[in-house]
Amino acid sequence: VFFKYKGLQFEAKPTAPDAVYAAKLQELLGGAYGEMTVAMQYLFQGWNCRMPGKYKDLILDVGTEELAHVEMISIMIARLLEGAPAETTAKACGGNPILAAVVGGMNPAQAIVSGGGPLLADSSGQAWSGKYIIASGNLFADFHANATAEMQGIIQATRLYNMTDDPGVREMLQFNIARDTMHQNMWLAALEELKNDGLENIPVPSQHPFDERNVAHAYEFQNMSEHVDSALGQWASGPAPDGKGQFTWVQNVQPTTAEPAPPLSDPMLYATAPAAAKGPAVEPGKAPATGSLVEKVKEALS
Amino acid sequence: VFFKYKGLQFEAKPTAPDAVYAAKLQELLGGAYGEMTVAMQYLFQGWNCRMPGKYKDLILDVGTEELAHVEMISIMIARLLEGAPAETTAKACGGNPILAAVVGGMNPAQAIVSGGGPLLADSSGQAWSGKYIIASGNLFADFHANATAEMQGIIQATRLYNMTDDPGVREMLQFNIARDTMHQNMWLAALEELKNDGLENIPVPSQHPFDERNVAHAYEFQNMSEHVDSALGQWASGPAPDGKGQFTWVQNVQPTTAEPAPPLSDPMLYATAPAAAKGPAVEPGKAPATGSLVEKVKEALS
Amino acid sequence: VFFKYKGLQFEAKPTAPDAVYAAKLQELLGGAYGEMTVAMQYLFQGWNCRMPGKYKDLILDVGTEELAHVEMISIMIARLLEGAPAETTAKACGGNPILAAVVGGMNPAQAIVSGGGPLLADSSGQAWSGKYIIASGNLFADFHANATAEMQGIIQATRLYNMTDDPGVREMLQFNIARDTMHQNMWLAALEELKNDGLENIPVPSQHPFDERNVAHAYEFQNMSEHVDSALGQWASGPAPDGKGQFTWVQNVQPTTAEPAPPLSDPMLYATAPAAAKGPAVEPGKAPATGSLVEKVKEALS
Amino acid sequence: VFFKYKGLQFEAKPTAPDAVYAAKLQELLGGAYGEMTVAMQYLFQGWNCRMPGKYKDLILDVGTEELAHVEMISIMIARLLEGAPAETTAKACGGNPILAAVVGGMNPAQAIVSGGGPLLADSSGQAWSGKYIIASGNLFADFHANATAEMQGIIQATRLYNMTDDPGVREMLQFNIARDTMHQNMWLAALEELKNDGLENIPVPSQHPFDERNVAHAYEFQNMSEHVDSALGQWASGPAPDGKGQFTWVQNVQPTTAEPAPPLSDPMLYATAPAAAKGPAVEPGKAPATGSLVEKVKEALS
Amino acid sequence: VFFKYKGLQFEAKPTAPDAVYAAKLQELLGGAYGEMTVAMQYLFQGWNCRMPGKYKDLILDVGTEELAHVEMISIMIARLLEGAPAETTAKACGGNPILAAVVGGMNPAQAIVSGGGPLLADSSGQAWSGKYIIASGNLFADFHANATAEMQGIIQATRLYNMTDDPGVREMLQFNIARDTMHQNMWLAALEELKNDGLENIPVPSQHPFDERNVAHAYEFQNMSEHVDSALGQWASGPAPDGKGQFTWVQNVQPTTAEPAPPLSDPMLYATAPAAAKGPAVEPGKAPATGSLVEKVKEALS
Amino acid sequence: VFFKYKGLQFEAKPTAPDAVYAAKLQELLGGAYGEMTVAMQYLFQGWNCRMPGKYKDLILDVGTEELAHVEMISIMIARLLEGAPAETTAKACGGNPILAAVVGGMNPAQAIVSGGGPLLADSSGQAWSGKYIIASGNLFADFHANATAEMQGIIQATRLYNMTDDPGVREMLQFNIARDTMHQNMWLAALEELKNDGLENIPVPSQHPFDERNVAHAYEFQNMSEHVDSALGQWASGPAPDGKGQFTWVQNVQPTTAEPAPPLSDPMLYATAPAAAKGPAVEPGKAPATGSLVEKVKEALS
Repeated sequence: VFFKYKGLQFEAKPTAPDAVYAAKLQELLGGAYGEMTVAMQYLFQGWNCRMPGKYKDLILDVGTEELAHVEMISIMIARLLEGAPAETTAKACGGNPILAAVVGGMNPAQAIVSGGGPLLADSSGQAWSGKYIIASGNLFADFHANATAEMQGIIQATRLYNMTDDPGVREMLQFNIARDTMHQNMWLAALEELKNDGLENIPVPSQHPFDERNVAHAYEFQNMSEHVDSALGQWASGPAPDGKGQFTWVQNVQPTTAEPAPPLSDPMLYATAPAAAKGPAVEPGKAPATGSLVEKVKEALS
Repeated sequence: VFFKYKGLQFEAKPTAPDAVYAAKLQELLGGAYGEMTVAMQYLFQGWNCRMPGKYKDLILDVGTEELAHVEMISIMIARLLEGAPAETTAKACGGNPILAAVVGGMNPAQAIVSGGGPLLADSSGQAWSGKYIIASGNLFADFHANATAEMQGIIQATRLYNMTDDPGVREMLQFNIARDTMHQNMWLAALEELKNDGLENIPVPSQHPFDERNVAHAYEFQNMSEHVDSALGQWASGPAPDGKGQFTWVQNVQPTTAEPAPPLSDPMLYATAPAAAKGPAVEPGKAPATGSLVEKVKEALS
Repeated sequence: VFFKYKGLQFEAKPTAPDAVYAAKLQELLGGAYGEMTVAMQYLFQGWNCRMPGKYKDLILDVGTEELAHVEMISIMIARLLEGAPAETTAKACGGNPILAAVVGGMNPAQAIVSGGGPLLADSSGQAWSGKYIIASGNLFADFHANATAEMQGIIQATRLYNMTDDPGVREMLQFNIARDTMHQNMWLAALEELKNDGLENIPVPSQHPFDERNVAHAYEFQNMSEHVDSALGQWASGPAPDGKGQFTWVQNVQPTTAEPAPPLSDPMLYATAPAAAKGPAVEPGKAPATGSLVEKVKEALS
Repeated sequence: VFFKYKGLQFEAKPTAPDAVYAAKLQELLGGAYGEMTVAMQYLFQGWNCRMPGKYKDLILDVGTEELAHVEMISIMIARLLEGAPAETTAKACGGNPILAAVVGGMNPAQAIVSGGGPLLADSSGQAWSGKYIIASGNLFADFHANATAEMQGIIQATRLYNMTDDPGVREMLQFNIARDTMHQNMWLAALEELKNDGLENIPVPSQHPFDERNVAHAYEFQNMSEHVDSALGQWASGPAPDGKGQFTWVQNVQPTTAEPAPPLSDPMLYATAPAAAKGPAVEPGKAPATGSLVEKVKEALS
Repeated sequence: VFFKYKGLQFEAKPTAPDAVYAAKLQELLGGAYGEMTVAMQYLFQGWNCRMPGKYKDLILDVGTEELAHVEMISIMIARLLEGAPAETTAKACGGNPILAAVVGGMNPAQAIVSGGGPLLADSSGQAWSGKYIIASGNLFADFHANATAEMQGIIQATRLYNMTDDPGVREMLQFNIARDTMHQNMWLAALEELKNDGLENIPVPSQHPFDERNVAHAYEFQNMSEHVDSALGQWASGPAPDGKGQFTWVQNVQPTTAEPAPPLSDPMLYATAPAAAKGPAVEPGKAPATGSLVEKVKEALS
Repeated sequence: VFFKYKGLQFEAKPTAPDAVYAAKLQELLGGAYGEMTVAMQYLFQGWNCRMPGKYKDLILDVGTEELAHVEMISIMIARLLEGAPAETTAKACGGNPILAAVVGGMNPAQAIVSGGGPLLADSSGQAWSGKYIIASGNLFADFHANATAEMQGIIQATRLYNMTDDPGVREMLQFNIARDTMHQNMWLAALEELKNDGLENIPVPSQHPFDERNVAHAYEFQNMSEHVDSALGQWASGPAPDGKGQFTWVQNVQPTTAEPAPPLSDPMLYATAPAAAKGPAVEPGKAPATGSLVEKVKEALS
């Protein structure tokens, strides 16, 4: 259950409207790494968390803060749109060619669809998608994803900071950037805490049984290109970060199989194939080619 | 430019077909964290990379390897679909209720649309999207995203490993899991390398000028919930991972502003508002309310 | 700013897990008319609202409640998924053909992607989209959309109610259905209030100047089909609900124009057209065919 | 079966081309509340309608009319694009800074992809989606959705009307606005008719058995915010529109449960959890934790 | 303008309901190559057609017919869904394990969302998208796309034909397949007609001036793989279908450039780059690095 | 397995940056008919191909070449974006109204999201989708789709060629256009080869048994419109391209059925229907209305 206060977490008041900038700022609201994404990513991680206590509290609290960021950016966008031209382009230009120049950069949907308010979309007008969030249940993988989201988000915020000189907008973005700084540090600290608590470690998922036969492949840089300077980094030799193996670097990795033979082709699917590559027509009443499933099930039954 | 060999990086041959599993395995091919995502994410990062040398070579080489993974999973799916029933459900069931049981789990589009082959879609049949990839140009943020993608990808691969006992499928997945292990370690090592080379550091982007007035907000856990166990982690006190500040934990953070006053409403947009909240109608020939943009431009001109 | 409590608005505890039902219940969470849609629709309407006071408070408060519904359904789905088979289909079936029968109805992404938790997607696995919400700024149109969302949502909830006999799930859905009943009534009452306050009336937007020449078309049922029973309803004769006109019913409405002549075709776009239908090639340095825009601007300037 | 006439329902001829406006007008064609949405929404409702006669005839006839609107807007967009610059931006600008100003507002896909014709997309270039339509089979809920679609659509049409002063475009939009006026009134009248015919009533679906234990929740405004002016509307006290209950207004609604305990975590899914929170590994051959489904089925069998 | 008849183009009556098949048949309705796609593709091509007469009439007429196909499939799906279980899975299974078996293959959204009716989505539940259609204005390219759509559509229809043995469904599909046969032939004939009328020819767009310097590349098979059997087809030697060149086959095509040097990196975008690769900071008041555009415009002005 | 060279297939170096053009060129990269589509379409067709040898080699080789095109366009876009304004619009405009004019046409996401690099999206910013590709397994249908993709792609390339006069960009596009010319010819030749090899013929799929009762419908133009000039083409009379029938042209095709009666309505789904049209409530323990499936299965068992 949530409770809503009337005030904002931080002031979101531009010194002057700027409809072109309002279109750009949508990226922080409804972009793949915008505030909506982190809000929902953290809340869904919290609702999917199997451990009551500090981790769950951490996730759900920050998710709640991010809702306040969604609110701040939404208010800011509405205010940036105040007085945006809602008339003909020619009139909007008035006698001023410079003014006219910027009209092209506006997002017409902010007027036509939302009447001067924010959209739940990014700076290209592409709607926000539930696919942007991840909540796998594995806290290490998810906290790493969270630090990633904060890093991409802060980079977009600093770029947007450079794209305006409106003191009010910059003031709010500085606050946002400070919070993203906190959240980057916070998720990185939480990754350490998970290790210290013995809950998870790299490579995740650490509970998966290690396959001894694939040790070589697990620490081997397979070079499949002319790009051989990849041999010069610490990922090409020396101990791996997980402390369990030594990196090696292998040049000119080749295929390990012959050209894969295609599966038989079902005549009822009309794939093009020579007659020999066609599976036999299934006779009515006989078990079809998924027979293998039957075998598996029979085995399980006995 | 790419060159294609006929063989596979690793054998992709199931011991027996399993059409239900073929539907699940789509997640590794066309899911948000599947092989298509990492292949395209790395290639686009490489083409957007501003530094010739070891980093660029690293990225582009691994992107090329991931294309081979897209190939392996695609071949595996086609083979798992061999003999999948392409007839009526009743016939497919034949005399076998257990066989019938699994038919419901198949993805009909793998027959109807691709004729027994893979789709560029995930295990729900949702098509792969170019929005899944990120290539921001900032290598630290992007390598962190890459490690995240490998972690989520490996978790999905290990889950899928547990969902089959086909020796051939498990053999391939073990190889995939080994490569994901390598890639997790590799991107984490590359993050270290970026720090060691003095190119980037947390908080990213480290070149953005730090705003002294927001130091408090940049290291402060703002608790906005009953979830107070969040005070118990190392993100709530002590030094932050970036070595630049000390975490604090603040209870009951309150709004810092009054309820935000809405912007004026343009009468031509027909938003509901009391007359007093409506902006004046713009007179033809006069500069409209984006006048602020005009002022900014004038200033820039002088 | 939001504050989060630990408890739920209402108990969300199934009597027993049911992974197949968990897949269906996603519709109430991430479907086009699920809880996520109403939560975001109301919050964005609130942030876009130009009138402080009872309407804005109404919208934002109910949006906050809907977040608690997103939470309830999310918790319920995670609990319904407890113990869902994460192994091979054959093992999951064990010796039980009936159990096997239901396995096909599960959503594998709830295991592979979210590890036994909810997805931000609907019952087909299609991700939630920011396009599902509307916040036009016109409160009458938006409250009408809200009542619509509650009606579609309640119908889906009652259908889902009939698809389970788990007492715990039914208990929660009864609460949800009661709240949807409240919200239907509430938005309908709010539509009345807007009329009573003289802020808006049908046809919306009531501030748009009425075009006298189109009165006939504004109250005329134009029949373009064999479906002539449409003449039998109160939409075909008598006073219209807006009290401003009388419905008429017209049979066999015909086109009012000849076949529309196509516009000239630009040779540089390679559309297929006879030579005569091609526009003249634009000479470099001359104003292109958008000259009309130039004329408009000139006019505005003078 | 449909029959197509050559002429248009109403003239769609701009006085002069205007490529920038052509990009905006896409919203009426392929936006979430554009003509394509209402055409398909009504047709699918008709094909899903279980009652031959006046309601079905109404729906299918208006759906057929909306196809004529899709046609009108498509023709208008093609004509607005006549002569739109298909050459370099610099040449398009020619010697005219004002002309140059507007070029930025054009949608390049209208030239590159459709060669000067309409796209099935909105004013942001986002493709139209089948998710925009609703046809639930419940006519009351669907007619309410239809009135909503007409309201949002007319608001967008009136905003677009204000964004042009081309007499030809305005002429067509006046006709469109008149038809949307008719359709708003019509769907509202049809809602009345459904009540009068005793087929449905609010709250929909009226056939669902009322749960007496939830009466309080069904007429109760639960305030979860500082936004207490919500107590001032007719939704907070007095009779509800359905005539079945009295509104109440409750301040400071609190959670009714303790923090929800998470479900057990399946070890095979690698969610992070303390050992105690992990479910037992399922032994092969034993019924897995979906046993509850087995119980239900057994019960149904006996 | 369209007129709607009550009857169907062909009978759409299954002998018995089959909810599992109803889910599959969605592919013909809302799939990428379903009836909705061809209906809208042809109508938009017609509205974008610059040539009144036989071609335009052809396109618009067939588009109108395809609307009747959308109708037929929609009716068929609703009828296939009659009596589909809308209760608990256990009850739906009743005492019958075989019946239970098929329940998993149903699409729950056909019950929850559309109440037993069709969705505008494909067999995976993915909504139809306006991106599926193409109307480029070039009739040759578009008719070729139309023949493609009919070929993919008929293949899906024949596969679906094999997946049922319901005489009523098969009867309708035979009609559909016959119409797709007609339409394949028709579009291929129309391609011939375009050539005969001298309007277009391969390679399209034939009006684009041929670049003599690239003749070699225009008829050269560039082999970039071990897959050398590609030399054995008629695409590797002999005259090309356009009659303008001779095919050649080139082995081991190599890159023609060195590794591309990256562009300068803007310091304000925080891309990772060595200092030397960073562009100079832009001084306020000075022309930024898009100066090249200024030069182009100056040139155009003079 | 793929191997990557450092160099490009062809030089991709603009003479000068042009950020507006970079936004347009995205269509060739991530549009529905861009390089990404053909690369993935061909690779997936190859991995789904059931015939080792010349056809499979052809498909996979050209798919590999298209990856090199994705690379070229990506590099070109990054270079076109060099120095694109990443600051305030006003500063970007500097003292130059013409420069200002073009700023509106830029895609802000190319700066905010990708830091001056390409996006995997089209010229409207809509992300590339896995739905754009088709790999049906039927080579004739797929090669026809491939020729279509090359035709639409080349038309977009030639339009983009006309939209720039940068010699470097035009040089690269000439190469692209030459390759698209080759590929058009190549797929058309491959269609011939399939016929010559007796593998497939029109109408595809030629292995589907012909239904004699529908011969009339299979060669009949059914005119459902006023558009009677459709009778004038070779698709209306004379032999059909498949050599198996004679085209006929039929005026005023009428429905062949009465208005379709709706299916019974399940009371548990709350569709609006008269009582008589409601199906009987299913009694617990009894077989529900999908009984027909039971019958089918019983029949198959015996």
